[in-house]
Amino acid sequence: MQKHAVVVCALAAVSGASMAQSSVTLFGVVDATVQHASQAGASANRLLGAGGNQFSRLGFRGTEDLGGGLAAGFVLDMGLNVDTGTGAPTSANNQVNLPATGTTFNRRSTVSLSSRELGEIRLGRDFVPTYWNITVFDPFGTAGAGSAANLAQGSLTRVSTVVTGLRASNSVGYFLPAMNGFYGQAMYAMGENVSPAPAGTRNDGNYAGARLGYAAGPLNVAAAYGTTSLASGDVSTGNLGASYTVGSFKFMAQFYRDAKERAAAPSRSRGWLVGAQIELGQGYFPVSYSQVQDNSAAERKAAQIAVGYVHNLSKRTAVYTTYSRIQNRNGAAVSGGGVPGVVNANWTGLDLGIRHIF
Amino acid sequence: MQKHAVVVCALAAVSGASMAQSSVTLFGVVDATVQHASQAGASANRLLGAGGNQFSRLGFRGTEDLGGGLAAGFVLDMGLNVDTGTGAPTSANNQVNLPATGTTFNRRSTVSLSSRELGEIRLGRDFVPTYWNITVFDPFGTAGAGSAANLAQGSLTRVSTVVTGLRASNSVGYFLPAMNGFYGQAMYAMGENVSPAPAGTRNDGNYAGARLGYAAGPLNVAAAYGTTSLASGDVSTGNLGASYTVGSFKFMAQFYRDAKERAAAPSRSRGWLVGAQIELGQGYFPVSYSQVQDNSAAERKAAQIAVGYVHNLSKRTAVYTTYSRIQNRNGAAVSGGGVPGVVNANWTGLDLGIRHIF
Amino acid sequence: MQKHAVVVCALAAVSGASMAQSSVTLFGVVDATVQHASQAGASANRLLGAGGNQFSRLGFRGTEDLGGGLAAGFVLDMGLNVDTGTGAPTSANNQVNLPATGTTFNRRSTVSLSSRELGEIRLGRDFVPTYWNITVFDPFGTAGAGSAANLAQGSLTRVSTVVTGLRASNSVGYFLPAMNGFYGQAMYAMGENVSPAPAGTRNDGNYAGARLGYAAGPLNVAAAYGTTSLASGDVSTGNLGASYTVGSFKFMAQFYRDAKERAAAPSRSRGWLVGAQIELGQGYFPVSYSQVQDNSAAERKAAQIAVGYVHNLSKRTAVYTTYSRIQNRNGAAVSGGGVPGVVNANWTGLDLGIRHIF
Repeated sequence: MQKHAVVVCALAAVSGASMAQSSVTLFGVVDATVQHASQAGASANRLLGAGGNQFSRLGFRGTEDLGGGLAAGFVLDMGLNVDTGTGAPTSANNQVNLPATGTTFNRRSTVSLSSRELGEIRLGRDFVPTYWNITVFDPFGTAGAGSAANLAQGSLTRVSTVVTGLRASNSVGYFLPAMNGFYGQAMYAMGENVSPAPAGTRNDGNYAGARLGYAAGPLNVAAAYGTTSLASGDVSTGNLGASYTVGSFKFMAQFYRDAKERAAAPSRSRGWLVGAQIELGQGYFPVSYSQVQDNSAAERKAAQIAVGYVHNLSKRTAVYTTYSRIQNRNGAAVSGGGVPGVVNANWTGLDLGIRHIF
Repeated sequence: MQKHAVVVCALAAVSGASMAQSSVTLFGVVDATVQHASQAGASANRLLGAGGNQFSRLGFRGTEDLGGGLAAGFVLDMGLNVDTGTGAPTSANNQVNLPATGTTFNRRSTVSLSSRELGEIRLGRDFVPTYWNITVFDPFGTAGAGSAANLAQGSLTRVSTVVTGLRASNSVGYFLPAMNGFYGQAMYAMGENVSPAPAGTRNDGNYAGARLGYAAGPLNVAAAYGTTSLASGDVSTGNLGASYTVGSFKFMAQFYRDAKERAAAPSRSRGWLVGAQIELGQGYFPVSYSQVQDNSAAERKAAQIAVGYVHNLSKRTAVYTTYSRIQNRNGAAVSGGGVPGVVNANWTGLDLGIRHIF
Repeated sequence: MQKHAVVVCALAAVSGASMAQSSVTLFGVVDATVQHASQAGASANRLLGAGGNQFSRLGFRGTEDLGGGLAAGFVLDMGLNVDTGTGAPTSANNQVNLPATGTTFNRRSTVSLSSRELGEIRLGRDFVPTYWNITVFDPFGTAGAGSAANLAQGSLTRVSTVVTGLRASNSVGYFLPAMNGFYGQAMYAMGENVSPAPAGTRNDGNYAGARLGYAAGPLNVAAAYGTTSLASGDVSTGNLGASYTVGSFKFMAQFYRDAKERAAAPSRSRGWLVGAQIELGQGYFPVSYSQVQDNSAAERKAAQIAVGYVHNLSKRTAVYTTYSRIQNRNGAAVSGGGVPGVVNANWTGLDLGIRHIF
């Protein structure tokens, strides 16, 4: 998804030394959407949103060929709220988010060494393996009114109770080398609690997870599992997703379940999504239907139907619109777009926006 | 004012695709001034200031030619306090400023589509139309000790009571295409209040404004009007300004009035400025005289006289000095440089600084 | 230490004007270390740290040749916590650090004018002269588990009680021009207290300091002295350091003392370090031994021994490891890596990391 449109010309500036194959790429997305969102009487209109088609960002990345199949690299990727000019929150301990008024490299901040044969080791803040299936196999890429995350990381899920649902700080990651279509990664991230910590909290915020997939021709399929340690009950999540391309149709499906374990009141939720991206002329139509439910006595449930159209003005620039509707039942109060949910009320969201990649 | 001194070389980095006419520009200003400011016994010496000639900033901008007279573009423009390395505040709801320790793209954060024939639509955070006349027709460009904003947005004005005096978040803007010297823009920005909001506050922070101007040969003239909605009383402001160049003299004048309407205690203020930039040798002298007064029973008044010299070492680098004096009468307590004002006391400010554009 | 690996291609973008010899450099370091630190029973594992070999940063710098030996320049240098994507704190008044969740140009934020014959004047936020000897003559460059700053700016010192130990905001600096191996600088930085300030606090946060050195062939030697004004007692520090290169050995030594003066309870501390960087094959071994003690009745003391290995994969990329041990005596509680110290307990730190310069 992250295309890197601009290469900063790399010239040797270290005195007297020539540096082969050095480059730094400046990349980013600016995406703003006029969004109308409402839910029952307690509606809310978040009139300008950032990232209805892709999340806005500004980043710097580079690689260095070390010879012999070895490479070093870094990524500094800053989330942006284009509507206000602010940044987005990160977490220092994987337990609470920091306040987010200034810009941070909250999306990704890593240094890595990679080998063609042995894979890549990556240190820093990064996306967790368990997030990728939710976004890669969502026709909306988890952005905007139709985001799969409205349900898959919404208020009925356990994942919504931890800050490691999307990314983790203080992480050590490993990525498999390319091998016949198989791909995979594992991550261990630390909560960095000072010892002696209050009883049982020593591991709070530690995350461990992995993802394994296979992509060849029209098929892409992957599964992931991960756990965030918490004294109040570990939160684990597992998911799998797949896409299959037939002509102008790219079909997608995902299934997930998560659970709060070892807790005073263990709980679970599960959900699924089917959808497609349908190419037509200069654009494509993303469509999806998804459901989520928890294991409460009432079996709270929510369902989302979303349709959109993305009109490409170029490879980098598009105008788009999305309509999404969430139906809540049995006491559910799921919503989108940052709107506080209302029990058993329908939520609707409408996006009309511009997305520009640079 | 924002000159873009550096073009990052744009090379095609999207795999297998060539991208014509893509470019990202890195631009900025670093300006620091040793400022001495004092007012009566309660003086204050803010000894190093940022932006005595131009406001310090760091930004990224780019445009993409979409063909057929269409273009896409973005600007991410970050205010800087060079004296401390901090950023500047922005607002999420156009009602209160966020704390400002980290850097943000508070100056401007927009994505836009433009057509040679139909004009430009722009989404994000941007300058309000009603700010431009105050800065464009000020010989000091509202920067430093002699800034027209000391009076025009100072403590006697209604504009000083809202955060939308300079810029607004969550905005949708429209700009006229070029047409025989006429130019114009309109902006609507949202306070994004969640509903149900407390009685009467639903529209708080909404801003609507427009500006229309004409520039040809030596003449530039423009008028603007805008209103910020607030349950405690809407704040509206109108202004007009003009400049006329004769030889080495660029004369400037502006007039403004603002009002708090629908309030328990409606109030108004109005003011004007005359000044000039006088080119001489390698530099120019900015000079201005301005007045402001409100409609209180005492008719509080302030007047400012400011003179400066900007010595260009190159097109991008200058050293400068400014002397400014504000006289307060009838209970006014206007000041500059962030100094808390003292009733009926004179304020003086002296800048000696370096400005470098990149 | 700050190598500038990438030059952004500078093209003339100012309308109709050509700009000779303009350039902006994008530079940075991403360094992440898996660190294990512990001290007695109250150990702490900060499992991922940022900057075990060099401090992580992202910066922009540029110079402009003004002709006749004159040049203008700027540096905007942002500290990074690669482990979390956050920035680092700066100070607005040289008295307290601001909260540090967003990124800031805390490392350096300056604009300057320089002359080949008269030297450089520099305005903004910058390193203080009294910091350089501590880092330049430390085989570990004050980074990671073996940092000389663990002792030299640790809890036994007076310098640790002020925020001007490393850098100062609101500063005016002067640097000598190059002259036969001699180099030097002086800085005055302001606390910018508003007047009338509470009794005696008018100068709080003001810093004045200077450094003078000589470098020729294998020898580099320098001395520095500086004072931070505080109503509660001025904090002054003096230090000197030297390095001498013989074949593969670069020997280093430093001595420092600091004092809190004019205080209700004046106090002092002093310390020294000896060490070396030993080149071997593709890398080098930094080693150091240092001591610090204060003048309390107990004469609290701490000693540190540190050894490391830095393996260069290229000029820009290295993997490294450091082992450091601090011994506390007579009531001292010195520690490293941000761990709260434990009285009379040994602290040990172990780094294993990757450093990449771009």
